[in-house]
Amino acid sequence: MTTHTMRLVDDLLKGESISLSRAISLVENEGDEVLEIMQRIAPHLGKAHCIGVTGAPGAGKSTLVDKLTALLRKQGLTVGIIAVDPTSPFTGGAVLGDRIRMQQHYLDDGVFIRSMATRGSMGGLPQTASTVIKLLDASGKDAILVETVGVGQSEVDIMQKTDTVVVTLCPESGDAIQAMKAGLLEIADIFVVNKADHPGADSSVRDIQAMLHMREPSWWDIPVVVTEAINDVGIEDLYERIALHRQVLSDTGQLAQRRQLQRRFDLVKTVEQKLTRKLLQAIEGDGQLGSYIERVEKGEVDPYTAADEILRSGKLLSDWLSQ
Amino acid sequence: MTTHTMRLVDDLLKGESISLSRAISLVENEGDEVLEIMQRIAPHLGKAHCIGVTGAPGAGKSTLVDKLTALLRKQGLTVGIIAVDPTSPFTGGAVLGDRIRMQQHYLDDGVFIRSMATRGSMGGLPQTASTVIKLLDASGKDAILVETVGVGQSEVDIMQKTDTVVVTLCPESGDAIQAMKAGLLEIADIFVVNKADHPGADSSVRDIQAMLHMREPSWWDIPVVVTEAINDVGIEDLYERIALHRQVLSDTGQLAQRRQLQRRFDLVKTVEQKLTRKLLQAIEGDGQLGSYIERVEKGEVDPYTAADEILRSGKLLSDWLSQ
Repeated sequence: MTTHTMRLVDDLLKGESISLSRAISLVENEGDEVLEIMQRIAPHLGKAHCIGVTGAPGAGKSTLVDKLTALLRKQGLTVGIIAVDPTSPFTGGAVLGDRIRMQQHYLDDGVFIRSMATRGSMGGLPQTASTVIKLLDASGKDAILVETVGVGQSEVDIMQKTDTVVVTLCPESGDAIQAMKAGLLEIADIFVVNKADHPGADSSVRDIQAMLHMREPSWWDIPVVVTEAINDVGIEDLYERIALHRQVLSDTGQLAQRRQLQRRFDLVKTVEQKLTRKLLQAIEGDGQLGSYIERVEKGEVDPYTAADEILRSGKLLSDWLSQ
Repeated sequence: MTTHTMRLVDDLLKGESISLSRAISLVENEGDEVLEIMQRIAPHLGKAHCIGVTGAPGAGKSTLVDKLTALLRKQGLTVGIIAVDPTSPFTGGAVLGDRIRMQQHYLDDGVFIRSMATRGSMGGLPQTASTVIKLLDASGKDAILVETVGVGQSEVDIMQKTDTVVVTLCPESGDAIQAMKAGLLEIADIFVVNKADHPGADSSVRDIQAMLHMREPSWWDIPVVVTEAINDVGIEDLYERIALHRQVLSDTGQLAQRRQLQRRFDLVKTVEQKLTRKLLQAIEGDGQLGSYIERVEKGEVDPYTAADEILRSGKLLSDWLSQ
């Protein structure tokens, strides 16, 4: 490990924002130093409470995250925020409109905000988000809020990297059904019906509760919390439920079990990423594998036969692994 | 290759529906026969026009697919439909409400419909969808329609496996902005503003066109088509644009280039999947690797150090690859 990287990690562990920011960039850009950084911070992980906030577009997730942050800060807790924004094809960067609202927190040393674009992470966005959560945890943040826009598979997978998942819905007819269709009921630890001043809030709550009644009894009863985030109504109630969920997770041994599974998953993912990188290098290279791939691209060999031959051929495989 | 699998592939290539259905199930369940099936159908691929239909929930995608199917059938073309449905946590299966509408086509031999759940495919949902598209192509379908609900990363990735992407929007204020935030503008080849009888359709079209004007000039001008799918209005116009897009793709050499990249991608993915499967088997096994993983789960070794050691250790790696 270079002295430079060692200093970066030391500063990160002290909670220094610039180092944290640099380390996150290294992770996003898949820098060679990432493995060393992760090894070094590993003993310092598992203290933060990681809270996921997801739901349909327009449900008011950013406002909810904003108000939760203000509440956590009032209690003297430090906060890390990861906002996963879809990449805009026109600006080339993340769509940051919603972030403008968060400006008040940018001046606060106790809050660290990072937007992540949804595009182009080799190990997959959920794995990158999981690594960034660990960096925030290692930097000493008490709470980590992860907000995802959208309702797709990657977004659901990101939520599974958090301890407590808050699914936010609008009080509009059919929103609960859409949430079910999007697979959000499966991952929710807490439901929020936001914009409670809008018509239809009561019936939304009833819809969700009706669906929740169909579940098998579990170690956790999923509560439905009603908020008006924009007017700061219901945020304390929501936070109490979030804190209770973490407590129950811990008391029932669920938290320890999840962390154990996550470590196994991280191992498999890390090996996979490293092997894939080697494979891609070998394909780009001048070796035997590189020229073999050209034949696949031209359609002379089909990809499935080629994969089989590569894995059977000691020569091609060692060409690959020795990169 | 067993005679059984050979017969399955032969029947599939003849367009036989039951064999097609069985082959898709084998792909979804990651059966050992998949590699052989793919090798055998590889020479028969690339004839179908694959059309992706995506957009915000409630935009009328299923109706659009329904009406497009009817139009294609009138022209004597055969159709394969892949509907990617989020898995319901309550029923354990896909949420099939929208499919009921498609019933008329279930009795038609020229239409093959398959719902795919969003959960649990090891190689990732986009890769599974890509393989199923190939099976439909090999079975001789002239057109393949792939419909995804939701606006997430996986859904966007699935669309990138198709030739022509139709992004469907509702004429509601802000829908175009939401589409941009969801990254849909980046992948659209054609925009549809559906439910054109609803208020706000004109301004939606203007919003999209304004955004499209900000793009760099390209080999393809993205059209905005107005439809009322439920009343069968605008479907022919839409289909003309879809056919034109395919023509231009082909004439400009884009299609050949995409297919070439896809073959390379399929090779890397196949090698990756096979190696990961071996890794997971080795971890579950009694070998040296299995006991090493226990130490990772307990937190005695961190996952990053472990990954590094596995890849450096000839013994652990061969324990793995020899599985």
